[in-house]
Amino acid sequence: MDEFDGSTASETVKRVSDSLGCSPTSAEVAAYFDKHDKLRHFREEFLVPKITELPPSDLSLVNGAKDCIYFSGNSLGLQPKNVKKYLEEELETWAKIAIHGHTMGARPWAWAENNIEELMAKVVGAKTEEVALMNGLTVNLHLLLLSFYKPTKTRHKILLEDKAFPSDHYAVESQIRLRGLDPKDSMLLLSPKPGEETLKTEDILEVIEKQGDSIAVVMFSGVQYYTGQLFDMARITEAGQRKGCYVGFDCAHAAGNVELELHDWGVDFACWCSYKYINSGAGGLAGAFIHEKHKHTIKPTLMGWWGHDLKSRFQMTNVMELQPGVSGFRLSNQPILLVCPLQASLEVFNMTTMQALRKKSLLLTGYLEYLIKHYYTKDPAQPHKPHVHIITPSDPQQRGCQLSLSFSVPIKRIFEELEKRGVACDMREPTVLRVAPVPMYNSFSDVHRFIRALGEALAASKQDWERN
Amino acid sequence: MDEFDGSTASETVKRVSDSLGCSPTSAEVAAYFDKHDKLRHFREEFLVPKITELPPSDLSLVNGAKDCIYFSGNSLGLQPKNVKKYLEEELETWAKIAIHGHTMGARPWAWAENNIEELMAKVVGAKTEEVALMNGLTVNLHLLLLSFYKPTKTRHKILLEDKAFPSDHYAVESQIRLRGLDPKDSMLLLSPKPGEETLKTEDILEVIEKQGDSIAVVMFSGVQYYTGQLFDMARITEAGQRKGCYVGFDCAHAAGNVELELHDWGVDFACWCSYKYINSGAGGLAGAFIHEKHKHTIKPTLMGWWGHDLKSRFQMTNVMELQPGVSGFRLSNQPILLVCPLQASLEVFNMTTMQALRKKSLLLTGYLEYLIKHYYTKDPAQPHKPHVHIITPSDPQQRGCQLSLSFSVPIKRIFEELEKRGVACDMREPTVLRVAPVPMYNSFSDVHRFIRALGEALAASKQDWERN
Ligand SMILES: Cc1ncc(COP(=O)(O)O)c(C=O)c1O
Ligand SMILES: Cc1ncc(COP(=O)(O)O)c(C=O)c1O
Repeated sequence: MDEFDGSTASETVKRVSDSLGCSPTSAEVAAYFDKHDKLRHFREEFLVPKITELPPSDLSLVNGAKDCIYFSGNSLGLQPKNVKKYLEEELETWAKIAIHGHTMGARPWAWAENNIEELMAKVVGAKTEEVALMNGLTVNLHLLLLSFYKPTKTRHKILLEDKAFPSDHYAVESQIRLRGLDPKDSMLLLSPKPGEETLKTEDILEVIEKQGDSIAVVMFSGVQYYTGQLFDMARITEAGQRKGCYVGFDCAHAAGNVELELHDWGVDFACWCSYKYINSGAGGLAGAFIHEKHKHTIKPTLMGWWGHDLKSRFQMTNVMELQPGVSGFRLSNQPILLVCPLQASLEVFNMTTMQALRKKSLLLTGYLEYLIKHYYTKDPAQPHKPHVHIITPSDPQQRGCQLSLSFSVPIKRIFEELEKRGVACDMREPTVLRVAPVPMYNSFSDVHRFIRALGEALAASKQDWERN
Repeated sequence: MDEFDGSTASETVKRVSDSLGCSPTSAEVAAYFDKHDKLRHFREEFLVPKITELPPSDLSLVNGAKDCIYFSGNSLGLQPKNVKKYLEEELETWAKIAIHGHTMGARPWAWAENNIEELMAKVVGAKTEEVALMNGLTVNLHLLLLSFYKPTKTRHKILLEDKAFPSDHYAVESQIRLRGLDPKDSMLLLSPKPGEETLKTEDILEVIEKQGDSIAVVMFSGVQYYTGQLFDMARITEAGQRKGCYVGFDCAHAAGNVELELHDWGVDFACWCSYKYINSGAGGLAGAFIHEKHKHTIKPTLMGWWGHDLKSRFQMTNVMELQPGVSGFRLSNQPILLVCPLQASLEVFNMTTMQALRKKSLLLTGYLEYLIKHYYTKDPAQPHKPHVHIITPSDPQQRGCQLSLSFSVPIKRIFEELEKRGVACDMREPTVLRVAPVPMYNSFSDVHRFIRALGEALAASKQDWERN
């Protein structure tokens, strides 16, 4: 996609449509983008559901034989084709050699997850030793906070977004209570300014600057699950650490979506799940990161045998030889059946780079934004026409692939009509749709088809929203 | 096996061999037992490795086409045949409907583990609401101890075995440190009396009686991983609670092995893994139990969205509506790929009862004991002949299916010779073999074949142990 370098998505759309001699909204533009998309073959690595299979599809409205328009990768990534193969290999190992599978076979179970941590580390911009694959995301967040959140009388707050993902909110709340403190005093919740929908980096930095002395941990998401906002992790980290805070990120919506440089940014700790952009299947193995600078100083609060040095782990001496860094935070042995899908996915990531994916993503999501704005910008001349406001920041550097669309009319019916037409996306009543064209497997034609489906959905639900 | 009721295993062996007119050590006895074993068809539900597939097998010594002698179910249970089918169903759901799999399909992912908790509860003698399937075992142990271990100035100790499984040891150690206490003072480690190899119930009860006022939590294993000792959980629970302690059990080696009545015994909390006797595959989903009497009083210390009431969980309000009891301890969403194998296994358990399995187990392990004693009891007349001492208590009520065999000679070579002959068991150098004939899938012929292989292994390694 190098010919698109150095211009905004909307400029690129216009330039291409001009050169093709068609309207910027023409399907030809999408086709052109797809043709020149160097990553388009990665779609072949995934199982894309057919419209006919999706339960809400209405085959009288749409060709069921087509791939669905899958814009839900921000909730659950598609299945890499090798998942089945790898799982079958391990089922065969279990069937054939059972207990010996711990140390033999394609993926010796006793250290299977270690063998893919290098691939995982690449995706999040970390050194291999800084990454552990284990547990679920919320579990990891807790294990990390238990070590990084050491409140003192004067420095006892955790700074996070007011509308953080619920699990993060509950995690922080309970961590504060565990220390005998009151979330009312120690949970510093940051809201957008009145009338704004997302946090301004300047406002975040200002709070850190002003209140940093009382903040023990700054704990943000990398990409906000609801608004799709990508936070400036480098600057937040720098600002927090300058004030003496630890800075950690929940990268659930960032890992595999945007370029992360957890190591270079000096992030203290991070965690993420692997079932969204990392396509490992529902409830897949989660990740944890601790910067190597803390390798010998930050110790796990809770310990288990999987944190013990592998070389002597099975001598069962009951004398802990703790692995340094995040590795020491391991507790339980990890499930081989979760390593398989994650490996299958990470191998696809390893065929490209986050940089290349991000480059495509900027155009892909920019193209979606262009079309939404083209069709659904509020028009004072047509006050009754529904319009769409994009909550997600318009600055591409402040978002990943997801756009959160706020409709001027209730969306339940519109969402249903979209689903009938083979669109998989996400509704947050009353008015928000979250749509995530994923650079790994979505195409520009997916975006164009979505826009068409949206037009049809709005027309079909006209009676509903006109009543409002 | 009803005709064997009411006598000890060795009496039964003798009675049967008498009636068959053969020696008690004859393979005919094993064949007779197998023929009258009402549970023998359950072996068909599992994939038993062939000798030829086991990497250490030496096919010049043994018929590779035969099933191996799998006595490692105490480490890793065999694969239930339905595992593959169920996994394929979920891979298909993921492939075909992706995100819709959370609420649709054979096992809606968002509550898939809840649907098998009833089956799990039966195996451990609990009410369904007392059980949560989640995380790994050590993770669960920590989550439980965080709530049950609330040390005070005078009551601050955790009582556990001196030689507890390493992960439990580290877990308890780190929990004590987390409270600012010193394991030297607060970790009360119970060793067998000098000259004894296992703990006597009376000694455990005495320590509880004497020191109970300073003990916050009594934390034992149900079945000891090394010695195979089954603790008297009912009496330990009763004794601990009488002194005001909480009593919890790590049932890793007990669940699916012996009859548990966690509810009726009034056990406060318990946790277990599912990859041993419960056959869910390496790193499978673990279990946690909290007695219903604590439903409204014991709250999770760490919280996550999966502890939120399911009905309103996805409204994402960030106001916690905590599920009562152990359900509130859930943190992360659980992996569907781990629910499948566990379901496959629990469905087999559900075709019988722990009572029936235990009945078979008593004879199966008793038969093994009989043969070991018959061949390898220390003989003063033959001082150079190697002999075997069974560490595991000889009282069948004080053990599960596993026997821990201590050899008078080093076992490395013996173990290797056993492996060459298609035996899968477990070696703890210098002198201990752990062998676990599992009633679910092992046969009496397996036991007989094991004894024969052991004889051959000893003969083959004669040079080695004679040197000693
Ligand atoms: C008694 C006992 N406790 C704890 C563990 C550790 O289990 P996990 O790695 O699942 O946490 C095991 C594993 O074999 C065990 O046998
Ligand atoms: C930002 C964020 N944090 C936490 C979670 C909870 O993840 P888990 O259930 O894997 O702990 C999610 C899940 O979607 C998430 O998006």
